[in-house]
Amino acid sequence: MNAINPENAFWSDLFARIAERGRQWLGRPLPAGASAESRIGELASSLISTKGEASGVALARALVAQWKSMDKPARRAWFEMLAQDFGPDAEKLTDAVGQWQAQPTPAAAQKLHAAAEPLRQELLRRINLAPGGTAALVEMRQELLTHLRDTPALEAVEADFVHLLTSWFNRGFLLLRPIDWASPANVLEKIIHYEAVHEIKDWNDLRRRLAPRDRRCFAFFHPQMPDEPLIFVEVALTSGIPGNIGELLSEERTALELPSTDTAVFYSISNTQVGLKGVSFGNFLIKQVVEELLREMPWLKTFVTLSPVPGFASWLKTARQDDSPLLAALPDNERLAGLDQSGWQENAEDREALAPVLRQAAATYLLQAKGANRRPLDPVARFHLGNGARLERIHASADLSAKGLRQSHGVMVNYLYDLGAIEKNHEDYADSGEVAHSSAIRKILAGDLSANMLTRNVQSLLGSEKPRKKEAKIS
Amino acid sequence: MNAINPENAFWSDLFARIAERGRQWLGRPLPAGASAESRIGELASSLISTKGEASGVALARALVAQWKSMDKPARRAWFEMLAQDFGPDAEKLTDAVGQWQAQPTPAAAQKLHAAAEPLRQELLRRINLAPGGTAALVEMRQELLTHLRDTPALEAVEADFVHLLTSWFNRGFLLLRPIDWASPANVLEKIIHYEAVHEIKDWNDLRRRLAPRDRRCFAFFHPQMPDEPLIFVEVALTSGIPGNIGELLSEERTALELPSTDTAVFYSISNTQVGLKGVSFGNFLIKQVVEELLREMPWLKTFVTLSPVPGFASWLKTARQDDSPLLAALPDNERLAGLDQSGWQENAEDREALAPVLRQAAATYLLQAKGANRRPLDPVARFHLGNGARLERIHASADLSAKGLRQSHGVMVNYLYDLGAIEKNHEDYADSGEVAHSSAIRKILAGDLSANMLTRNVQSLLGSEKPRKKEAKIS
Amino acid sequence: MNAINPENAFWSDLFARIAERGRQWLGRPLPAGASAESRIGELASSLISTKGEASGVALARALVAQWKSMDKPARRAWFEMLAQDFGPDAEKLTDAVGQWQAQPTPAAAQKLHAAAEPLRQELLRRINLAPGGTAALVEMRQELLTHLRDTPALEAVEADFVHLLTSWFNRGFLLLRPIDWASPANVLEKIIHYEAVHEIKDWNDLRRRLAPRDRRCFAFFHPQMPDEPLIFVEVALTSGIPGNIGELLSEERTALELPSTDTAVFYSISNTQVGLKGVSFGNFLIKQVVEELLREMPWLKTFVTLSPVPGFASWLKTARQDDSPLLAALPDNERLAGLDQSGWQENAEDREALAPVLRQAAATYLLQAKGANRRPLDPVARFHLGNGARLERIHASADLSAKGLRQSHGVMVNYLYDLGAIEKNHEDYADSGEVAHSSAIRKILAGDLSANMLTRNVQSLLGSEKPRKKEAKIS
Amino acid sequence: MNAINPENAFWSDLFARIAERGRQWLGRPLPAGASAESRIGELASSLISTKGEASGVALARALVAQWKSMDKPARRAWFEMLAQDFGPDAEKLTDAVGQWQAQPTPAAAQKLHAAAEPLRQELLRRINLAPGGTAALVEMRQELLTHLRDTPALEAVEADFVHLLTSWFNRGFLLLRPIDWASPANVLEKIIHYEAVHEIKDWNDLRRRLAPRDRRCFAFFHPQMPDEPLIFVEVALTSGIPGNIGELLSEERTALELPSTDTAVFYSISNTQVGLKGVSFGNFLIKQVVEELLREMPWLKTFVTLSPVPGFASWLKTARQDDSPLLAALPDNERLAGLDQSGWQENAEDREALAPVLRQAAATYLLQAKGANRRPLDPVARFHLGNGARLERIHASADLSAKGLRQSHGVMVNYLYDLGAIEKNHEDYADSGEVAHSSAIRKILAGDLSANMLTRNVQSLLGSEKPRKKEAKIS
Repeated sequence: MNAINPENAFWSDLFARIAERGRQWLGRPLPAGASAESRIGELASSLISTKGEASGVALARALVAQWKSMDKPARRAWFEMLAQDFGPDAEKLTDAVGQWQAQPTPAAAQKLHAAAEPLRQELLRRINLAPGGTAALVEMRQELLTHLRDTPALEAVEADFVHLLTSWFNRGFLLLRPIDWASPANVLEKIIHYEAVHEIKDWNDLRRRLAPRDRRCFAFFHPQMPDEPLIFVEVALTSGIPGNIGELLSEERTALELPSTDTAVFYSISNTQVGLKGVSFGNFLIKQVVEELLREMPWLKTFVTLSPVPGFASWLKTARQDDSPLLAALPDNERLAGLDQSGWQENAEDREALAPVLRQAAATYLLQAKGANRRPLDPVARFHLGNGARLERIHASADLSAKGLRQSHGVMVNYLYDLGAIEKNHEDYADSGEVAHSSAIRKILAGDLSANMLTRNVQSLLGSEKPRKKEAKIS
Repeated sequence: MNAINPENAFWSDLFARIAERGRQWLGRPLPAGASAESRIGELASSLISTKGEASGVALARALVAQWKSMDKPARRAWFEMLAQDFGPDAEKLTDAVGQWQAQPTPAAAQKLHAAAEPLRQELLRRINLAPGGTAALVEMRQELLTHLRDTPALEAVEADFVHLLTSWFNRGFLLLRPIDWASPANVLEKIIHYEAVHEIKDWNDLRRRLAPRDRRCFAFFHPQMPDEPLIFVEVALTSGIPGNIGELLSEERTALELPSTDTAVFYSISNTQVGLKGVSFGNFLIKQVVEELLREMPWLKTFVTLSPVPGFASWLKTARQDDSPLLAALPDNERLAGLDQSGWQENAEDREALAPVLRQAAATYLLQAKGANRRPLDPVARFHLGNGARLERIHASADLSAKGLRQSHGVMVNYLYDLGAIEKNHEDYADSGEVAHSSAIRKILAGDLSANMLTRNVQSLLGSEKPRKKEAKIS
Repeated sequence: MNAINPENAFWSDLFARIAERGRQWLGRPLPAGASAESRIGELASSLISTKGEASGVALARALVAQWKSMDKPARRAWFEMLAQDFGPDAEKLTDAVGQWQAQPTPAAAQKLHAAAEPLRQELLRRINLAPGGTAALVEMRQELLTHLRDTPALEAVEADFVHLLTSWFNRGFLLLRPIDWASPANVLEKIIHYEAVHEIKDWNDLRRRLAPRDRRCFAFFHPQMPDEPLIFVEVALTSGIPGNIGELLSEERTALELPSTDTAVFYSISNTQVGLKGVSFGNFLIKQVVEELLREMPWLKTFVTLSPVPGFASWLKTARQDDSPLLAALPDNERLAGLDQSGWQENAEDREALAPVLRQAAATYLLQAKGANRRPLDPVARFHLGNGARLERIHASADLSAKGLRQSHGVMVNYLYDLGAIEKNHEDYADSGEVAHSSAIRKILAGDLSANMLTRNVQSLLGSEKPRKKEAKIS
Repeated sequence: MNAINPENAFWSDLFARIAERGRQWLGRPLPAGASAESRIGELASSLISTKGEASGVALARALVAQWKSMDKPARRAWFEMLAQDFGPDAEKLTDAVGQWQAQPTPAAAQKLHAAAEPLRQELLRRINLAPGGTAALVEMRQELLTHLRDTPALEAVEADFVHLLTSWFNRGFLLLRPIDWASPANVLEKIIHYEAVHEIKDWNDLRRRLAPRDRRCFAFFHPQMPDEPLIFVEVALTSGIPGNIGELLSEERTALELPSTDTAVFYSISNTQVGLKGVSFGNFLIKQVVEELLREMPWLKTFVTLSPVPGFASWLKTARQDDSPLLAALPDNERLAGLDQSGWQENAEDREALAPVLRQAAATYLLQAKGANRRPLDPVARFHLGNGARLERIHASADLSAKGLRQSHGVMVNYLYDLGAIEKNHEDYADSGEVAHSSAIRKILAGDLSANMLTRNVQSLLGSEKPRKKEAKIS
């Protein structure tokens, strides 16, 4: 039975020996009976101590393994320990404050900054030594976020996580990589999992988004998390600006020849790591993708999104209940009642009847219904406008999926990335919350029913954009 | 609307120019009205002519594109053209024959060989210049095979394809690559597609075969077809030799820790390219995979297949109809009637009652029921025995899937690859058709009902294999 | 002293065991006392026998190792064994000849071809199974070439090597890879070693050819020999067509900005593998490099060589001794005496005085002094003209290195690759040996002294030489 | 003449257009006449402002380009600007101090930390956005270090660089990569350049250190600086512990077969980036290299350095001048006078006569002559002892190069990395400065002349180490 030789005992022996040797790196074993909290506490103390320098990687690995095995209460206790036991050295800090008050020199300020740095920043830096340490810290922050509301004392811990993750996930360290049908399956399954805008049902659905020659996808990766896309954008190459997500993703469509395309449509952007919330790099993504696309296809003329308006329906509901003056000003406001008639979306005539007022209301929502800080209420709008894009078009009946109807009565919009105008748009928006928008949008607001159509006609005369007949019929 | 600059006409212009330049490589366009056959014929003539030297790649690319666009009748016409118009030069050959008959020197033999080489071999070599040329030739051969029966005159063309493909797919040029869950999706979808032994239902099923730590998969690739696995083998790492495919592939099982494994089980081997039929490299695959596995896990002791017996049921049917003396000699032959009772496989008692005679009959089929050339009738047996493996065990009720019952009444077998015995086994088999087999198999043939069990007991005493309780109960 | 643990004996033990297991693959050891020839003969017999299928890779590896350890006489004996013992099967061949004569069908021709194939082709295919087998066979052929003159009986062996290597090194299997200063050192040292045209003195010299932004290098590689460039070309990007290699390779020059270049100059092409003599792929190289360069720098307008004229000086010597009428026809032929005056190359006036007649004589050598098959006598000229290039310019005092003076009295020439004319040039050359050449060359032949010089003067006035049309007018 | 087509103007046009588009990203051009300082100041202001969010990458790239073009005074001015204009916001800081004094909560401490963070940390993070930004910041710090002595006010800037670089060059982000003769030439030339211990003369010398089968080299890389080894170690695989660098690097030596080796010798460790001074990762390097070596060669028993003692000669000179009592205690101290006799190193007898006292003096220097913080005076000793190694052997006449004689009268030492003792050694050293050392060293100190030899004899009896005859004779 023994296929190789009679002394097979040596092989098993060998394995045991290798494993044993690995354990030696870790030093003395921790007492087995200790609680999870006390074990991780001991590991943290060792790691932050001078001893940590000798066996830092092994200790960090053990701490991460310990943390992963802990349940929610033990994890909360861990965060509380970080908050209480790993703050700044109070004595040193008092000292530094004294010195700075005595003489507020740059040197004193620097000392103050150093003295105020909590010990846990260094601890987190050392945890990062573990294989997979960066990913573990991102996961830790994800857990931490769930405890913040109940335990405000953890805010200081949160601040340190944000500080370090922001530094480590600096855009300069991120890699833009194309995702396609030849990408590793373990990366692709994450694309399926994380797609947040238009659900990917299965692998066939994924292939339809990645494999055709007129589709692209790009993601940012961190060198320490090579299998984890951090944020990704899905792109469709089209001829002219599309106004309907269903057509864009239709199973029946045939792929375009590349030379016949002139437009790149960013139809879905998804963040993947809850633990990196607030560590933003999305704005860099779109700009770099534009560069990549132009390198491959220098003939592309237009870079545009096809975006949901996720807050529109709920705003509209409230506005109607409150008899908002913004609505009262709409030329066709009386037609909004049509929304109350169930099933309108299934009837072409009803859809057409509602389209003008939906576009007007959406334009109002995006341009006029500002929040406290003079920014639009819609999060997607804030993202693209903050990036320097401009609101280009509004389409009714553009997303008739359940989610699309629920969130925005089927409305979608295009934000246009005009490289020559990005900076000015961004500055105006940053200074005053001013929302850049096209003349088509202006006409919608003014109740000019022919708005979209007119634009198209002029453009088709000018030759820079092909008229899209289908949309014409619908709107 | 124009996102970039006003002179966009330049971009489209640019593209047109690049495309145009590409076309210049191809030389003068072929007359548009010509038939597919005459077009490909003209391309072939150009390619084989002196002109082909200057623009070989472009001509080869055009010929391949033309071929791909042709329908079945046109393709048959293409093969017939190859047979008739691209044979050896008759005059030269007559000449060389004359010289060889006058003086049969090595030089004359060499000239004869050269003169007898059909022109189409050189043509096929030049077609190989096209990007994707090798894959196109494999595809061409696949088509050719479908015409052989009806058109025996194509045998000469077939011989040339075989000759060239055998030379190009020489084992020395193949690369062994592991396939895992981080492999490119466009390779993995081919694994799903080509798996010929135990169907892979979907991507989740595939992940269960590739992702767990105790599973491996390896494939041979050709440098010119980097996305096409040519042949692949799926491996399960186990503790002891398994006798049941259902347990091996169960969705519920938990993966083993690597150090607790001692056996590598090759449970599925699939060829993928019909166009490479007869160009064999499967025997190299298993031996190289054994080396790879040992490099990673030097403690592995046993290398074994878990194989179907695809010809068993149909042989048994005929043998029973014909009152074969081989069956008459089986100790339990009267029990074979149990097979006629529908639903026996669903009842544990019935299965146990049938197991001894099924094992006996299978042993007979594999060891004694030889074909004309003294080789076993079973193709899977011929493959592994020809590789130098030995028949190790026979399991009843080992594959109760519809296919398993239909092909072999649920019987599966293990072929053992004992590195120290491979060569002798192979030689004995090659010389005399002798089938290497274990003592357990001998006992089965002798009607020793306790065969499998006994073996196991002795082995467990000797410490070289863990008894597998489940199987004990069943058999 | 023992850094790890007390049972270190296990480690050495383990190693011994792994090595031993490797040996088992090889089967029974060969008798130690046997001669090299008998050992390699025995290995060859095993490899070609049925036994070879079971342990092919191990046998092939052993045969290659044996061959590498053999001295020159033993290697010659090996080739003689291949010639005598591994020819075609005489009986089968006689048979096939008989059948073909009885009925010369395609099938009979095919059988004849198969029967005439020497056994050694299959043997060589199996040697290719060894790791590094392809490289070993190339090396074997290199050795074989040194024995051919003395042992004509080896011609049949040579024919088989050529046949197989031509098939395996089919252009379709070669990879074009850029070589630059980030390429692996073990590849780069081969570039230094193999550079055959303009010697690379050391690594600093190499860096000057690879690192600057206006330099490129490309090589063909075979998948089985990934560290061995098979042929490589060095490229300089310039503004205008250069006429002097010294300036091109000057240590002092500053690299051009890419946008200011318009010309790619192939100034050195080197084959590396003697063992692949006659297996040509050089013509594919230049065309594919042109494509690569255009992809990166679509603005390039001109693709041209700066080539030596290696046979010029020796032809001229003979022609002068023989009072060749070709020389007599040269307008300035009396000035050739200047060449006999030693040191002319060091004096600018002398160089200028000789320039016109050197250009005339070189033009005569390249265009009119044909060999038996109506091809030019110069090998470099035959290579580029056969590829479809045209002779564009002739420069005197273009390479004043010792080698340049010795081979061609300092003359160099440009061959122009005009993509639109390549095919026609190639055909004319193939049909009739006609040498395509520019009007500038015609004028040189006609004794128009001002030809090149004028062009240059005007161009230097105009700057860097863009106008193509202008030149047409001038010359 | 025109190789492609008549409308070539389009190509140049195209290029201009692409370049122009690139410039648009950068926004309005800066006034051309501005001084370097004012230009970089304006770029820094833009980058740190809200505007920086929109065009961060382009601004960062411009700032880096500007910095690189600046001369030393302008760069000093840049650092002074960073010190003065980009400190913490004084008002916010005063505020935060007040709050913390009022109520020293964790939240207040965190606010204090944030308020004390100088603006320039964020500025440096944004500079890191530039392609090559990380490398540029390392270069900036290198320059900064040259200004620190003269301009103490820059210390605050230095602290911020150290803080960020320490965070970004966290060991968790570094990649260990083997360096061998197949590594890219642009990496290898840096190995030649940076080797700090035993000079690498040229590429042939480098090949001798990388190509032989018994040599290894490993380096840490940062993902953002893929061509820049940060620190590298050169390793020789030997049989037994070597005591002489000349033999180890001899041009004549023949490489060992791997199975006959038992020891890995780290004979040179070099940091490469002055700009990363104080950002230490060397201790991680050796431990990870030990793991890598064991993975490849599990039979290795001993991991040891062959190290210089760079401070020995100058310490000895002073000690002799000062009649140090440490020297007086040496058994053979009177023999030290032999050092004053020029040319002693060229005479074998003189070398042997001096060897005992040199070993004693070196042992004294390394073990007893501590600095203020109870650490050894020798920097190499501090590095390895701080890593947990122990002082294993001392060799006289081990490095007779000019540098070796000048620095240490030819003495070299071995530090042993015993994985089982590293942690304890490190702790003892960290706690009390205690220097771990072998019994052989103890005997040297005790004046036991036979020390080294005895050790060897005992070891050879124990079988764990082969006696090295050569060394025996020398010492």
